[in-house]
Amino acid sequence: MKKKVNAAILIIGNEILSGRTQDKNIAFISNWLNTKCGISVEEARVIPDIEKIIVKNVLKLSSKFNYLFTTGGIGPTHDDITSQSISKAFKVKYEYHEEAFRILEKYYGKKKFNDGRKKMAKMPKGAKLIYNPSSAAPGFIIKNVLSLPGVPSILNSMIENCKKHLIKGLKVHSKTINLFTVESNIAKGLGLIQKKFKKNVDIGSYPFFRLGKIGVSVVTRSTSISKLRSVNKEITQLIKLKKIKILKI
Amino acid sequence: MKKKVNAAILIIGNEILSGRTQDKNIAFISNWLNTKCGISVEEARVIPDIEKIIVKNVLKLSSKFNYLFTTGGIGPTHDDITSQSISKAFKVKYEYHEEAFRILEKYYGKKKFNDGRKKMAKMPKGAKLIYNPSSAAPGFIIKNVLSLPGVPSILNSMIENCKKHLIKGLKVHSKTINLFTVESNIAKGLGLIQKKFKKNVDIGSYPFFRLGKIGVSVVTRSTSISKLRSVNKEITQLIKLKKIKILKI
Repeated sequence: MKKKVNAAILIIGNEILSGRTQDKNIAFISNWLNTKCGISVEEARVIPDIEKIIVKNVLKLSSKFNYLFTTGGIGPTHDDITSQSISKAFKVKYEYHEEAFRILEKYYGKKKFNDGRKKMAKMPKGAKLIYNPSSAAPGFIIKNVLSLPGVPSILNSMIENCKKHLIKGLKVHSKTINLFTVESNIAKGLGLIQKKFKKNVDIGSYPFFRLGKIGVSVVTRSTSISKLRSVNKEITQLIKLKKIKILKI
Repeated sequence: MKKKVNAAILIIGNEILSGRTQDKNIAFISNWLNTKCGISVEEARVIPDIEKIIVKNVLKLSSKFNYLFTTGGIGPTHDDITSQSISKAFKVKYEYHEEAFRILEKYYGKKKFNDGRKKMAKMPKGAKLIYNPSSAAPGFIIKNVLSLPGVPSILNSMIENCKKHLIKGLKVHSKTINLFTVESNIAKGLGLIQKKFKKNVDIGSYPFFRLGKIGVSVVTRSTSISKLRSVNKEITQLIKLKKIKILKI
C-alpha cells in the first residue's frame, strides 16, 4: 500500500537571496512532485553559496524528509560548491564520476574540455547520475538527496529523469472553486467545515483580483477522493446559502 | 558607524509549497531591503500553515538574524494563523489591537465589520502597526519580527511603512557585467580573483540566454566601493585577455 511521501527543497544561490533573480524552481518542483509522484513538499529554504551553511542544511533536511532536492551550484565556476558541500555533509570523497566525465568529454570534445568543465564531472563518491538532455552536465542523487542545476530551463528538462529514483506516494487530489466574494464572507463557514474534516482534508482560501473584481479561490486537498467530495458538497451548500456567484474558468 | 545588518524571510502558506502559487515576495523583499535599507537577506524559508512549525521557525530565525519578515496568514480565514502563532512563539496574549480594530471598523463600516474581519485586528500584545494603504488591514511588528500579508500587490504597497521600524545597515554596492561567453571560459580567472578578494567582495557568475546566444552575467557585490572597483579592474583585464565581447544593455 502506498504511503505519504514528503520532500524538501533547498535553493542554493546568492542571486536568489539578493533578489536579483526570481526563483521559479520551488513552484516547478513542488508542482511536479505533487502531480506526477504523489510527493508533497513540506519545506523549502533558500541559502547562500557558503559551504558550512549548505552542509548544515543538507544534513538537517535530508534527515527530516523522505527526499531533499537541491538546485543550483553545480556549474563550472568558483561559486558552484554544491557537489563538494554534499560530499562533505555525507563524509564521502569528492571525485570524478567516470560516466559523467565521459559524457562531458564527448559533449565538449577533448580539446574544449577545460578545467571548469571537468569540475562538473566531480561529485560525491557513490552518486548516481540524473541525466541532462539539454546541456549534458548531469545532476546526481546520493542517499535521498537529488542535486539539480539552478537554471530553470535546464532543470525542467531533467525533472522526468528523477522519477526512477523516487518512490511514489499517495496522490493528493485537489479541487478549486473560484468565487466572486470576499474571504470574510465565507471565513466562518469554511472554518466550521475545516474543523469537521480536520484529519483528512486541507481547505485553503486565497484572494484574487480578476477583471476588476475581488474573488476568493477555495482550494481543497486530500488523499481521499470520497472525503474531498464530502467537503466540496458542504462548501457548495455554503455557497448556495450565501448566494455567491461562482466564476467558471 | 553603520554595521552589517541582516534579515531572514519566512513565507507562510500551503499554496506556495504545493506549487499552486509562484512566490514573488522573497525577491521583492530582498531587493527592497538590499537597495533601500542596506540590509541583506541571508536565509528564506517556505513553510506550511501549521502552528507548531510557524512557532519553531519564528523563534529560530528571529534569534539568528537582526530581522525576520513573515508573509502570509494574517487574513480573515481559518487557515490564517500567523498572528496567533507569533503570539505563542513570544508567549504574549493574542488579542485585539485597539488602533487596528478602529482602522478596520472605519474601513468596513460597523454593519459589515463581521467576525472574519475583526480577526484581522487580533495581534500579539504589544505589537506596533505597519499601515496598509491599499486594503486597510495592517501588518505588525513585535520584537524584531515584521508580519506582512501574502498577496504581493498589498505587501508591495506596505513595504515603505516598514522603514521606520528598521535600523539601516551598510549599503551593499554591486556591479554587473554581461559577457558573450560561457562560464567555463572565465571560471579559472574569476576563481583566482575571488580568492584574492575573499574577505571583501562576492563574485557571482550566472549563465543567461539572450537572442539565441549564451552569455554570463558576472555580478560583484561589496560594502566597499574601492574594493569593488579593484575587483572590476581585474575582471576587465581578464575579459580583454580572453577577447570576450561585452553585452551593453
